[in-house]
Amino acid sequence: MAVKTFDLHINTKGFCDVIDITLKISKFVQDSNIRDGIVVVFVPGSTAGITTIEYESGVLNDLCRVMEKLVPSSERYEHNLRWGDGNGFSHVRASLMGPSISIPLVNGSLSLGTWQQVVLCDFDNRGRTRRIIVQIVGE
Amino acid sequence: MAVKTFDLHINTKGFCDVIDITLKISKFVQDSNIRDGIVVVFVPGSTAGITTIEYESGVLNDLCRVMEKLVPSSERYEHNLRWGDGNGFSHVRASLMGPSISIPLVNGSLSLGTWQQVVLCDFDNRGRTRRIIVQIVGE
Amino acid sequence: MAVKTFDLHINTKGFCDVIDITLKISKFVQDSNIRDGIVVVFVPGSTAGITTIEYESGVLNDLCRVMEKLVPSSERYEHNLRWGDGNGFSHVRASLMGPSISIPLVNGSLSLGTWQQVVLCDFDNRGRTRRIIVQIVGE
Repeated sequence: MAVKTFDLHINTKGFCDVIDITLKISKFVQDSNIRDGIVVVFVPGSTAGITTIEYESGVLNDLCRVMEKLVPSSERYEHNLRWGDGNGFSHVRASLMGPSISIPLVNGSLSLGTWQQVVLCDFDNRGRTRRIIVQIVGE
Repeated sequence: MAVKTFDLHINTKGFCDVIDITLKISKFVQDSNIRDGIVVVFVPGSTAGITTIEYESGVLNDLCRVMEKLVPSSERYEHNLRWGDGNGFSHVRASLMGPSISIPLVNGSLSLGTWQQVVLCDFDNRGRTRRIIVQIVGE
Repeated sequence: MAVKTFDLHINTKGFCDVIDITLKISKFVQDSNIRDGIVVVFVPGSTAGITTIEYESGVLNDLCRVMEKLVPSSERYEHNLRWGDGNGFSHVRASLMGPSISIPLVNGSLSLGTWQQVVLCDFDNRGRTRRIIVQIVGE
């Protein structure tokens, strides 16, 4: 059994920028020499989330449109009144989505579906350089 | 320390079919001979999610009614325009819920609440045979 | 490699009570003598969730206001008709948020962002004493 931790840095445009990080994660898995175990994908920060989606531009737009409907960027947020950075909506969206997912690694492969990619969703109201942590615990 | 991985296959009806998989997971835990560690439950595919709920038909209907309100099946989705499979809403719901949860295994028992079951939520617009992966890492 | 499990008990007020549990988790991490691995935070029960947020009262209010908009406490829920405990909205909110997150532990530190705290969100319609399980698997 071993623990291997990898860092990924991604430049985003913010405003619901959804970025496919599956290939990078697969590369880390290969480099880890771990064949079976848990792969945790985690984003530090309180204005971004991690999930999976079919990485197809239509459905990416759908996800962002729904997020805009549920947690509108133009509403009044108390966070904005206090901090003036105007990204209250980004914080709420990130908390709803959550910062982590866990993927089983089975016989050397991530057990994702054929049309299922791992994505970083950057909800902030500006571009960011994001750090993502990929940690593999297994054997 | 060991890693044990199990596969579960479930036939669903789609359209927010919420299926209790707790007993199957408990059986895998028993078969694993692991007493303490992390149990990851993961659904491959981009139109289903994993969460927990009190498995009572009233609240299952409530969850599906809220999902229909937040991410309506009848709205226009770009995904549908491009692929014609009509399940844009299914993808968005799945991404919001997320594909995985992690449950601590403590002294041979899943640490769920008394009224808390693990469920697969199939949001697709047709019945599916779903594969669910249950992976236990511990000792 | 080792598995260490800790229990945390928290008194809440319910009604979207969002409680910062980061310091307690950090203490458990220190006590575990594990330096690298996965930290799972899990809440048993079907009316509470775990996520991360910037722990600032403005954005806490924003999160609860959005939850009230998306899953109103005053609507009609089938769960309430059957059980009469009036907390159908609490169940639905908890299922949407999810009961667990996983945080990489790297070189003795939780890999959270500077403004990112781990929180219990108690959505029930009364105060509760909540048990939270923090499990660390690593070396």
